[in-house]
This record gives sequence, C-alpha cells and structure tokens, in this order.
Amino acid sequence: MRFDVRLSGSGGQGIIVMGIILAEAIGVYDGKYVAQTQSYGPEARGGSSKAEVVFSDEEIDYPEAIKLDLLLAMSQKSCDEYYEDLKPEGTLIVDSTFVTQFPVPEVFAIPFTRIAREKLGKEMAANIVALGAMGQLTNIVSRGALEKAVISRLPRGTEALNRDALRAGISAAKRVGKNHALSQRIVWENEDL
Amino acid sequence: MRFDVRLSGSGGQGIIVMGIILAEAIGVYDGKYVAQTQSYGPEARGGSSKAEVVFSDEEIDYPEAIKLDLLLAMSQKSCDEYYEDLKPEGTLIVDSTFVTQFPVPEVFAIPFTRIAREKLGKEMAANIVALGAMGQLTNIVSRGALEKAVISRLPRGTEALNRDALRAGISAAKRVGKNHALSQRIVWENEDL
Repeated sequence: MRFDVRLSGSGGQGIIVMGIILAEAIGVYDGKYVAQTQSYGPEARGGSSKAEVVFSDEEIDYPEAIKLDLLLAMSQKSCDEYYEDLKPEGTLIVDSTFVTQFPVPEVFAIPFTRIAREKLGKEMAANIVALGAMGQLTNIVSRGALEKAVISRLPRGTEALNRDALRAGISAAKRVGKNHALSQRIVWENEDL
Repeated sequence: MRFDVRLSGSGGQGIIVMGIILAEAIGVYDGKYVAQTQSYGPEARGGSSKAEVVFSDEEIDYPEAIKLDLLLAMSQKSCDEYYEDLKPEGTLIVDSTFVTQFPVPEVFAIPFTRIAREKLGKEMAANIVALGAMGQLTNIVSRGALEKAVISRLPRGTEALNRDALRAGISAAKRVGKNHALSQRIVWENEDL
C-alpha cells in the first residue's frame, strides 16, 4: 500500500514547499500515514532541489522514497537524474517549459511555469499549478485536502492567487481527459495554455 | 559524525518550519550533508508536531533520527513522549513557558514563547527565538547560516522581526555563559526575559 513520490527541480522552484504541502494534504486532511523528507548538502550545490513524500495506510518504516510510483521533474537535469528510479509502472510528470527531452515514452508533459507566468502573472506559482495537475492526474490526494494545505501553508494574502494556480493546474490536466488514474497512463503533451 | 536532532511541540508552534530552516542553514549555508524529515498521519491527531534534522560530514544513509543528540521540546506532551529517545549524553532544550516538569536532571529551560510574546509582541516568533538559542547553546549551526536560512525561508516583510527573534534567543542562551558546546552540559533555567 506504500506509494513513493519524488518532486524535483531547480533551487528556487519551490520544490520543498510542494513537498510540505503535499504531505500535509495527504497526512492531515486525507488522514493517511505520511513521511516527508528533503536532503541538502554538497550534492545539491548544482542548484538541484528534491523533496520526497511517502504515504501509506499503515505506519511507514522507511521514510525515504525507494522506487518511485510518481516522479515530478520541473527541470531537465532532475528529469535526467531521477527517471531511472521510477518503477516500470511509475508515472512521470514534467514541466515542459524546461523539460523537452523525455527519457521514457510515457510522460505527462505540461508547461507549468508557462501557465503560471502567462495565465497567473506569477512564475513563482508554477509549483502550485503542478500540485493541482498532480492531484488531477493521479488521484493520490483529494482536491479539498490540497486546497486546505495550500491555504494553510502559504502566506496570508496569497489565497486567491493560489486557488487560481491550483485550478489552472487541474484544468490543464483535465485536457488529458477526466480522472485519469495511475493505471491509465497515456502519452500526453499539452503546450496549450 | 552523524548528529540527530528532533524538534517537537504542538501543532501551530511552527515546528516544521523550524526543521526546514535548520536543515537549510546546516546543509546549504554550512555545507554539511543534511536530511530533514517530518511525519503526518493518524498518530499526529493529538495535535503534536515533530520534525527531524540529521546531519553529517558524510552522506546520510538513514534519514530519520534514531537516538537523539538533541531534543527540543516546545510542549510538555512532546517532552514526555520523546525524552527517552535521547542519548545518555544528549541535550534537552525546552520551552519553559509550557514545559514545567523536567524528565531528566540536565536541561536547558528557556521561556521561548514568553520571550516572543513579551519582548517581540509576536508569540508566533517563538520558534525563531528557539532556533537562535539552539545555535548558541550547541554550536551545531553558525549564526550567519541560521540568519540566511531564516531570511530566505520566511515571508518578505518579516526580516526585522525574525532577526530580532534570533537575537533574543541568542541573548537568552548567552545568559548561561558563552559558547557552551554540547560537551559542557549544565543545568540551567532562565525565567528572566
């Protein structure tokens, strides 16, 4: 029942905050056991950023992601570095603003940063757009839980922007079709905004 | 060379943010290997909150704290629950605003929340006061790294408050004496502001 997620990208893309929000949504609001980990150190000097969320219906013995059920890559470098940790049936979601070389044939490619910049006027909200899309594409977290966690974790005054960002992500993901579960992976690329 | 820290308290005391800041300070600015973990889930329903920071000069194989070199307890409940995980030579720091029963004879007891409320007018800054004191009491993180991480992680506009909070924590800890290393543990209680 264990499900291992890795969120990855460049420093400054809000990867760690994404991890915190996703873990809080699944753990506090959806009521599962969740462990959330991030690592720092000499290996991160290249400006890479990585956060992991592991959840389960049972207590989690090992909190770090092992083989990935889901990998989000917000940069080409992180995509190239981590795709080999995906399970054969794992899901890859990329920010196609920056990831243009796909290492596997099956990938959800959505331009999160372009959407944040051009639809919301705030490139910094790309991580929240991505969270919305992840929820829609995978069903790992309920929309209500995600929204509660986003609102509780981000600064007061940014509620409207962040709700819009979640919605923009959900809507971009919906253009793939409704309620795609992890078991229905398809090759999909959306360059429309 | 591994050093295991657990930060604990009630929900709403900013424990998770403390973990993020401490990990970033040690990993990004002081250049050590750091793993930072928090758990959510049914076990946290009582409103407890816990974050762990493990650091080392070498890569970290197991990211969760095992036996603690340092425990910060911001609530009586978390103090009671976790003090048994301390190593015999481990250090216990408590927020004496809420922790009044000490489970071990050697403890650094500082009223972080009272200091934040009465000196800074912002009870919410108690976690940053505690970080300042921890840095001063233990030498696990440099003051410059801590300040950089606090400023980079917390919302714009709170810089002055957070610098004051760090300073208040450092100054409260200094009343124990200067630069106490972990090897010089003493019993100390400071109810002065």
